Amino acid sequence: MSEIEFKKRKSIEQVEESTDLAPKFDKDGLIPVVTTDFDSGEVLMQGFMNEEAFKKTITFGEAVYYSRSRNTIWHKGKTSGLVQKIKEIRIDDDQDSVWLKVQVKGGASCHVGYRSCFYRSISIENKNFKKIKLKFEEGEKVFDPKDVYGDSPNPTKL
Amino acid sequence: MSEIEFKKRKSIEQVEESTDLAPKFDKDGLIPVVTTDFDSGEVLMQGFMNEEAFKKTITFGEAVYYSRSRNTIWHKGKTSGLVQKIKEIRIDDDQDSVWLKVQVKGGASCHVGYRSCFYRSISIENKNFKKIKLKFEEGEKVFDPKDVYGDSPNPTKL
Repeated sequence: MSEIEFKKRKSIEQVEESTDLAPKFDKDGLIPVVTTDFDSGEVLMQGFMNEEAFKKTITFGEAVYYSRSRNTIWHKGKTSGLVQKIKEIRIDDDQDSVWLKVQVKGGASCHVGYRSCFYRSISIENKNFKKIKLKFEEGEKVFDPKDVYGDSPNPTKL
Repeated sequence: MSEIEFKKRKSIEQVEESTDLAPKFDKDGLIPVVTTDFDSGEVLMQGFMNEEAFKKTITFGEAVYYSRSRNTIWHKGKTSGLVQKIKEIRIDDDQDSVWLKVQVKGGASCHVGYRSCFYRSISIENKNFKKIKLKFEEGEKVFDPKDVYGDSPNPTKL
């Protein structure tokens, strides 16, 4: 991993207008990441990387995150096989946010079995905010989580 | 704002498989948000909302974020006019991440003047990680930030 060196952040102009890669990690050492499907453009998931995960993502050409619930580096797909192959990495204006465009083996990315983790929308009828509800936007699961994860603990925390 | 009530998180099944809106805010009271252009699907920006910003986003039908650098609620576009009109709101499997699909007045979303905040990609030639560089993916700015923001302080922090 020693080969990649991020640049020091020296000026707003350097960060916003230059070709220096000088990412900013927050007080917990993390940078937020949005991951989209390279072909459909759909948002698959949102996560975080620490410096090690970011460097591994670049080096491996596969998405590596930092799991906040498990406090560990997380090479996506190592359990499920649903590896995310990196097609493009973008960084935002002030370099504190990353966008990964990926191709996913198997076409699904969500541990619940859906294509995208964002399989529900917020539904409000007639501005009746008291009756706010979620609506399922994906009709069918792509896989059965039990087949893929077996008895592994569910990563969702209450 | 009192009209919207988020549900209490009771079980993994409720959070992942039901129609209850039961978002999870992190230890700082924030939830990450990815915002895409409703028409092109392009990722425009990534930000955060606190509970108040999330409820205002739903109620106003316009994106309201929480600015971590300025520690304040941030109704996007109030200074620049680049308001983000909400077309759809999605939430992820464990309800700790939000996806906004928006239409932006003026077609640009980034304070630097580009359409998307993610106007640069990470460029690696021949796996030479020592020579990693950013590459500009948008050719021209959509607006001149000086015309829009005048002497307002730049939000980018080193």
